[in-house]
Amino acid sequence: MIARGGDTREMDWQIKTSGAGLYEFTRDVAASVAATGVLTLFVKHTSCSLLIQENADPEVQTDLTAFFDRFVPPADHPGMSYLSHTYEGPDDMPAHIKAAMLPTSLQIPVISGEFQLGNWQGIYIFEHRTVPHLRRVVGMMR
Amino acid sequence: MIARGGDTREMDWQIKTSGAGLYEFTRDVAASVAATGVLTLFVKHTSCSLLIQENADPEVQTDLTAFFDRFVPPADHPGMSYLSHTYEGPDDMPAHIKAAMLPTSLQIPVISGEFQLGNWQGIYIFEHRTVPHLRRVVGMMR
Amino acid sequence: MIARGGDTREMDWQIKTSGAGLYEFTRDVAASVAATGVLTLFVKHTSCSLLIQENADPEVQTDLTAFFDRFVPPADHPGMSYLSHTYEGPDDMPAHIKAAMLPTSLQIPVISGEFQLGNWQGIYIFEHRTVPHLRRVVGMMR
Repeated sequence: MIARGGDTREMDWQIKTSGAGLYEFTRDVAASVAATGVLTLFVKHTSCSLLIQENADPEVQTDLTAFFDRFVPPADHPGMSYLSHTYEGPDDMPAHIKAAMLPTSLQIPVISGEFQLGNWQGIYIFEHRTVPHLRRVVGMMR
Repeated sequence: MIARGGDTREMDWQIKTSGAGLYEFTRDVAASVAATGVLTLFVKHTSCSLLIQENADPEVQTDLTAFFDRFVPPADHPGMSYLSHTYEGPDDMPAHIKAAMLPTSLQIPVISGEFQLGNWQGIYIFEHRTVPHLRRVVGMMR
Repeated sequence: MIARGGDTREMDWQIKTSGAGLYEFTRDVAASVAATGVLTLFVKHTSCSLLIQENADPEVQTDLTAFFDRFVPPADHPGMSYLSHTYEGPDDMPAHIKAAMLPTSLQIPVISGEFQLGNWQGIYIFEHRTVPHLRRVVGMMR
C-alpha cells in the first residue's frame, strides 16, 4: 500500500490462485481503508473476476464455481464447438466469458473508517483459469 | 439521508420486498443528489441486486424476473441437484447465483445537480428471495 | 470533453453501432484521463453495455457475441415464447436481458495520469440491438 497526500489512498495486491474458484481477501482490504470515501477495486485481467458474495458458508463458494462451470463449459465440450479463441486451452475462452459476466471492479463506501460491507459480504477473486496465476488488484480510496 | 461537510453526501435507504422481482426507487435517489460528482449505491446483501433498467414498460421488469427464474431455477428443480447450500430453502443458493451475476453497486455521474440517467433508465432493487425482506442500500455522493 | 475546475473532469462520447457486437473506444478514453483519481464511464441506455475485455485477439470479441446470442436468443426462438416485451422486435427484450447482466458503468483507477488498465484490457460498447444506434457514454474523472 502506498499512502499519498490529500484524499487519495492507493493500494495494490497480488493474489496467487491455483485453479478455478473463489479466493477471499476481505481482511487485507479492510485493513487498508480509512477516513470517508469510496473504495474502488480493479482487477487488471480479463480471465478472472472480483466478486462480493456470502462468506459465512463455504458451500456458497463451491456452488458458485459449480454453477459457472456448468453454465460455461470448457471449449472441448460438445455444445461449445462454435468457439474460435481456443489456442490457450479449453478453459481460455470460457474464462473470458465468465469474466465478462462478473465484475472487473468493485465499489464499497467507507464512512468514518468503517467499511460498509454487510455482515456476510466477503471480497473475492473469482479465478476462471485452471493453471495457477498471480492476479493483480489495484485499489483506490477517494 | 445524512448530509456531511465538504464534498461528501451520505444516504441510506431501507426497501421492503415481497417476493422475487424488481422494486423501483429512482425518485428517492434522484431527490438526494446535488452538486457534481459520482453517486455510488451499494446494497449490503448477497441475495438481492441493484439494477439500472428500462422503466417505461413494466413488462420489461416481469420478463427480466421470468428470464432469471428459468435461467437459475430453484434448488429442488431436477437440473439443480448438484447444489449443496440449500438449508435456507430452494430459493437460497439460486439467489446467491443471481446476485453474483447482477450488480451489488451502481455508479451514476451527477453534473451540476443533474442526474445523468438516460430517459428510460430506472434504479431498482432486484429481489431474488421468495419471502419478504427489508433491504438496506447505502449511497455516497463524492 | 469539457474540462472543469478542481478535481473533476467530465467527458462525453457518441458511438455509432451497426448491429450486435463489441466496439472498442479505449484510445478515446485513454486520451482524456489525467492526474490521479477514478474514471467512471456510464452508458445512458438499457439495451447495450459497457465492457472491459481482451483486445489482443479479435476472436474473443466474436466469441463473446456468439455466446450471448446463444444464451439469450431472439424472442421468436421457440424457447423464448414466454417474453411479453416484444413490440420493438425479437431483439428488443433479449437486449434488455443482456444489458442487465453486463455493466452499465465501469470504474478504472488512474495514477499520476497513468491509466490502470492491464496489458490486454480494452474498453468496449457491447451493442445488443440489430439496427444501427448512436450510443451516448458519459465519463467523469474524480
